[in-house]
Amino acid sequence: MIKTITLAHGNGGAENNELIEKVFYKHFKNDILSKSEDAAVIEEGKLAFTTDSFTVSPLFFPGGDIGKLAICGTCNDLSMMGAKPKYLTCSVIIEEGFLTRELEKIVKSMKKELDINGAIVVSGDTKVVPKGSVDKLFINTTGIGEIEHKGISASALKEEMSILVSRDIGTHGATIFAEREGIKLTSTLQTDCASLYPEIKKLVDSGINIVALRDATRGGVSAVLNEWAKSSDVCIEIEEESIPVREEVRGICEMLGFEAVNLANEGTFLLAVAKEDEEKALEILQETHKTSRIIASVTNQYKGKVLLNSSWGTKRFLDLPTGELLPRIC
Amino acid sequence: MIKTITLAHGNGGAENNELIEKVFYKHFKNDILSKSEDAAVIEEGKLAFTTDSFTVSPLFFPGGDIGKLAICGTCNDLSMMGAKPKYLTCSVIIEEGFLTRELEKIVKSMKKELDINGAIVVSGDTKVVPKGSVDKLFINTTGIGEIEHKGISASALKEEMSILVSRDIGTHGATIFAEREGIKLTSTLQTDCASLYPEIKKLVDSGINIVALRDATRGGVSAVLNEWAKSSDVCIEIEEESIPVREEVRGICEMLGFEAVNLANEGTFLLAVAKEDEEKALEILQETHKTSRIIASVTNQYKGKVLLNSSWGTKRFLDLPTGELLPRIC
Repeated sequence: MIKTITLAHGNGGAENNELIEKVFYKHFKNDILSKSEDAAVIEEGKLAFTTDSFTVSPLFFPGGDIGKLAICGTCNDLSMMGAKPKYLTCSVIIEEGFLTRELEKIVKSMKKELDINGAIVVSGDTKVVPKGSVDKLFINTTGIGEIEHKGISASALKEEMSILVSRDIGTHGATIFAEREGIKLTSTLQTDCASLYPEIKKLVDSGINIVALRDATRGGVSAVLNEWAKSSDVCIEIEEESIPVREEVRGICEMLGFEAVNLANEGTFLLAVAKEDEEKALEILQETHKTSRIIASVTNQYKGKVLLNSSWGTKRFLDLPTGELLPRIC
Repeated sequence: MIKTITLAHGNGGAENNELIEKVFYKHFKNDILSKSEDAAVIEEGKLAFTTDSFTVSPLFFPGGDIGKLAICGTCNDLSMMGAKPKYLTCSVIIEEGFLTRELEKIVKSMKKELDINGAIVVSGDTKVVPKGSVDKLFINTTGIGEIEHKGISASALKEEMSILVSRDIGTHGATIFAEREGIKLTSTLQTDCASLYPEIKKLVDSGINIVALRDATRGGVSAVLNEWAKSSDVCIEIEEESIPVREEVRGICEMLGFEAVNLANEGTFLLAVAKEDEEKALEILQETHKTSRIIASVTNQYKGKVLLNSSWGTKRFLDLPTGELLPRIC
């Protein structure tokens, strides 16, 4: 039994799952929750419903801020269930002394992303707490989306299907780390944070059967693939060489002692489709990001596991990330 | 223009409204949000949608804890729009080092209140942040309810209507204050925190036309009456003598220099009905709380204002509370 909650319990990986299962699922138990998708499917499959709290530090970083992150994060979770983001709530907890000018900058970022998604904020809550009770500002966004593509599920992967990544990975994690540590590696590295609905809409409209879809946030690509392998009881074989990683991200990974596949993303998703749809899917994804690739295939070799075929010709299991990854990444 | 955000901007009163209007409403502007009801009405009037973040300190207090508060708070906001609480999300931000035993106690309290409302948690988020980034634990709950009684609105009050309060007021604010300051005034004083759906359901089923309904949380009874007077452009005349306040709460008010009508409640609501429905409504409310009273009537004397007829025979305006009320009350 977990006695004390540690930073590892918020890592999006193994310990995080353990806390969720042993405390929250145990008591809140119900059929919808136990599906553990990015968003709950409610109202006879018509609506998707999801929540996220954002605690990122620093609040402003290359390519985004906590406001952009909050709208993208929640709208992307809806998009990942094939839903069009529609209504959001916005709840902020502010430390006294926070500058209104900064708050307004954050709210403007939110509005900009809302417009990209065609969503609106319909309800909110504002709390101000004494100095020291919160580090500057936290935002919760919870959203409702209208499902446009039904049946997307982490449990639907089958042998011989293909898995694609929508762009090069790890830039959000690398950007936040570099910003926090004052590392000036490059002038071009910035978070991938983006609203994914427009890109998903293109996939939906193309008529491709989207089997599974998930943005690789906390826990990165590893966490998504492990969850899919487990939920669908299949083996996912990933080719290390095919994983797109920028040079700057590789450099930061070496400094951190992290693997890019474990780094958080905020605008990068994985897509599972039938083998015959992979080329068409890749073509659509590459219209948005040239770095999109087919990175893995579904087999029946080691059920529930992710097998990494390394560039050196060796094979190893890619496990769910564990330990204290970067805290306050989102 | 507000330069810096102060504790007063989270008081549920005048400064809070100013911040919301000048920063959030200004940028998020839309027809649903600008109604500024307890919950947004969406999907052609079928669903209600609302959010609340809870930062109360201490986490455990006589009669409740942050978990009970989080479910009651959000379910009550739905009930206040005539909706049956149905689906909730639960997002927690935990400080590293928090004890799992305490978290589980909180989650159990949540489950108990969920059952009273017949609601379930369908989606969640768990963040763990380093020591000093948050004071112990914050919870956001966001809920969807199915509207059972349409047309409840803060803008629907008309001359000659009556306003009732569901029970004696101010116990939540008084309890939190006493607990925080280590005051042991009495062994019986505890928060009013409660799920109001069962009581509202009785009102709905009775066939009474519920004109307006709102729980008197931050900013207390004063904030609700002022909002109603303004939204409906009417005068609300309240009889000081008729306001039910317990002796212990009166005592704490004297110590605080507060008025009971400004103290926060978490299970006390105001109800506006036509004059001819007031006796029937009172009878129903008194089945739950003997202390329920008819406290005010709607007139056209000073439009947009709340007029208090004091026990001494004098009259004064009861304004929206201002300044730093008790922070972290909910």
